[in-house]
Amino acid sequence: MLAFVVDRHNLKGTNTSKPRLRPGWALVRVRMAGICNTDLEILRGYHNFYGTPGHEFVGEVQEVAGVSAAVKKRWVGKRITGEINIACRALGFRPVCRFCKRGLARHCERRKVLGIVAHDGAFAEYLTLPIENLHAIPDSITDEMAVFVEPLAAGCEILDQINVKQFREAAVLGDGKLAQLIARVLRTALPRVVMYGKHPKKLALARRARIETKLVRGDAGDLNRVKKSFALLVEATGSPTGLALAQQMTEPRGTLVLKSTFHGAAPVETWPTVVKELTVVGSRCGPFDKAITLLRSGKVDPRPLITLTLPLQQAPRAIAYAQEPGVMKVLMQAESRVSEV
Amino acid sequence: MLAFVVDRHNLKGTNTSKPRLRPGWALVRVRMAGICNTDLEILRGYHNFYGTPGHEFVGEVQEVAGVSAAVKKRWVGKRITGEINIACRALGFRPVCRFCKRGLARHCERRKVLGIVAHDGAFAEYLTLPIENLHAIPDSITDEMAVFVEPLAAGCEILDQINVKQFREAAVLGDGKLAQLIARVLRTALPRVVMYGKHPKKLALARRARIETKLVRGDAGDLNRVKKSFALLVEATGSPTGLALAQQMTEPRGTLVLKSTFHGAAPVETWPTVVKELTVVGSRCGPFDKAITLLRSGKVDPRPLITLTLPLQQAPRAIAYAQEPGVMKVLMQAESRVSEV
Repeated sequence: MLAFVVDRHNLKGTNTSKPRLRPGWALVRVRMAGICNTDLEILRGYHNFYGTPGHEFVGEVQEVAGVSAAVKKRWVGKRITGEINIACRALGFRPVCRFCKRGLARHCERRKVLGIVAHDGAFAEYLTLPIENLHAIPDSITDEMAVFVEPLAAGCEILDQINVKQFREAAVLGDGKLAQLIARVLRTALPRVVMYGKHPKKLALARRARIETKLVRGDAGDLNRVKKSFALLVEATGSPTGLALAQQMTEPRGTLVLKSTFHGAAPVETWPTVVKELTVVGSRCGPFDKAITLLRSGKVDPRPLITLTLPLQQAPRAIAYAQEPGVMKVLMQAESRVSEV
Repeated sequence: MLAFVVDRHNLKGTNTSKPRLRPGWALVRVRMAGICNTDLEILRGYHNFYGTPGHEFVGEVQEVAGVSAAVKKRWVGKRITGEINIACRALGFRPVCRFCKRGLARHCERRKVLGIVAHDGAFAEYLTLPIENLHAIPDSITDEMAVFVEPLAAGCEILDQINVKQFREAAVLGDGKLAQLIARVLRTALPRVVMYGKHPKKLALARRARIETKLVRGDAGDLNRVKKSFALLVEATGSPTGLALAQQMTEPRGTLVLKSTFHGAAPVETWPTVVKELTVVGSRCGPFDKAITLLRSGKVDPRPLITLTLPLQQAPRAIAYAQEPGVMKVLMQAESRVSEV
C-alpha cells in the first residue's frame, strides 16, 4: 500500500505492506484525510514523530481481528471515523493505568496517538485502530463532513469542560481551521461569538456562520487598541504570541480556554493570569459522538472551510499547499481503485 | 513623618507631611510592616510604582474622617490590618464599575493598591486606607502574627477558588515566604502537602509545620528526575522557570494554581497545559477574615518564618537583607515614640 512518512520536514511516499492486526483491532481503508496544523507542526519536529502522520479521516472498515461474528458483522464494510488516542486496554496493558481506570482513556499514560505518537496515521491507504475507537458515520453525513469529526470534537470538548451557558458571549482568537470550528460550536450554545483574526477572507467565512468578526493587524500597537474584554475567551491562534493577547482580553475572574499547541517556547508574561485570577483551561481532544450529532443536525456545516481536495498520491503537494497563506482545510482523497499490496 | 520611597532600585527615606484624609478613610499609624517579594519586584521596576511600597502591615487607627461618632468610636485606637485593594466606592466613583457591582472589589477596574498601584504603602510612619478595608485584630494575635494576615489571606484565596477537599494531597513548588504560608493553609484542609524547594533550611521550617518536603536542585537534569505528579499543585516559586516544572508535575486534568508574579516574560512551552488539559487558576489576594480566623485558632503560626526585625529607620538595610539567600520574612517596626510632623 501507499503510505507517506515524515522525511526531513516533508512527506515521502513509500510502498509498504498493509499493517497487521492485533485482536480487537480494525483495518481501515482511508477514504479521505484532512491536514491539521498539528501535522504541519509534526513536520517541523513536534513530538519527534517520524511515521505516517494524519489523524483526521473517514474510512471504511476492511477487516477486524479476534472478535465474534456479530462484532465483525457490525463493523466490516462500515463507514467510520476513529478516536485518535489508543489506550491501555487496546495496547494489551493489564492492569490499565490510573487514567484509564477513571474513564479518561484520552489521557492514558501509555497512549499512542494516531499519526502523532508512535502509531501510523491516515496519510496512507490503510490505517489500524482499536475497534473501541471507531464511530460509525450515518449516511446523511458525507465524507467531506465526516473528515471534520475529529477537530469538531476538539471544539465540542470546550462544552464538556465548561458550563458555557453561564456566559452571554465568547471571543475566539484566531481565524484558522480549528478556530472556525470552535466558533461554530460555541455559536450553537451562545447568542454571540466574536472572532478576532488577521485574515479578511477567513473572517468572511465565519460571518456566514453568524459569527461576529473583528480584524486585527496583530502588531503590538494594534494589540493595545483591543480594549474589549470577555468573560469567556478561546485562544486558538496557533501562534506563540496568542497567549499574551488572550490574557489581556480575558476579564478578571474570566475563563481562558487554551487550544493552541505549537512546537517550542514562547516568551510569556504570566502575571496577568495571577493578577486577574483567570482560569486557564487547557483543551485537547473531545467527544466524537457529540461532533457527529452536531454534523447530523446541520447546526454546524464545516464544508465551506474546505479549500482544496487532492488525491492521496499528491500528499506532499497537499502539505505544501496547506501552508500557503489564506488556505483553510486541505483534504486528501483515496483513488477509487486502491492498489493492493 | 518618615516615609521611604522607591529610588533607583532602592528605598530612600524622606521627611514628609502626614497624608490627608478623604471622608470615609482612616489614618493608620504603622506598628509593623513586612517585606514581600512583590516589594522586591517593585524595586526592580514591576508596576512602575515610585511611591512608598509596603502592603503587609499591622497598625493603629489614629483618625477617621467624615463618619459618625459611632464609627469613629469603633475604629480610633484600634489595632488593625487592611485590605490592599482600594475600590470604586472609596475612590469616589459613582456608579461603581462592573466588578465592584458584582462584589469583586479586589478586581475593581479603577483600583489603587496599597504600596503597589498609585497609593502609598506601609514603609512609612503613617498610611491611609478606606475604613471599609480595615480589619480589627483580636488581642490574642500579636503584631508579629498580624503582619502576616495579608499574605496568609493570599494563601486562603486558594481555598475560596478551589474545592480543596476533593483532593487527597497537594504539592507546593517553592519554599519561600508565600509558599510556606500556602503550604500551611493547604495543610489545614488536606492530610498531605509536599513542598518542593531548593533550600534545606527553608524546607526544615516547613517540616516543623507537618509539611512533607523534597529537595530539588532545580537544574534541568534534576527537573527530569521529578517523576511524581499531583492532581493539585501550587506554583509559588516566584521564579520564571517554575511554570515549566509545575506543568510537568501536574497530572492530566489536574489543577495548577499560579501564585508567582514577577517582572518580565519567561519562555514557556504551553502545550503541556493543552495536551494534559490542565486547569490553571491564577490566584492573588484573598479573604482577610479567614486569615485572621486561622491565626486566632492557632492552626497556622507564621512566626517561625521571621528572620529579622529592624526599625523602620533601617528600611534600606531591611530591603537589602531580605534579598540575601536563605532569608525569610524581614519585618520593620515603628519606634515606640513616633516623631510628629
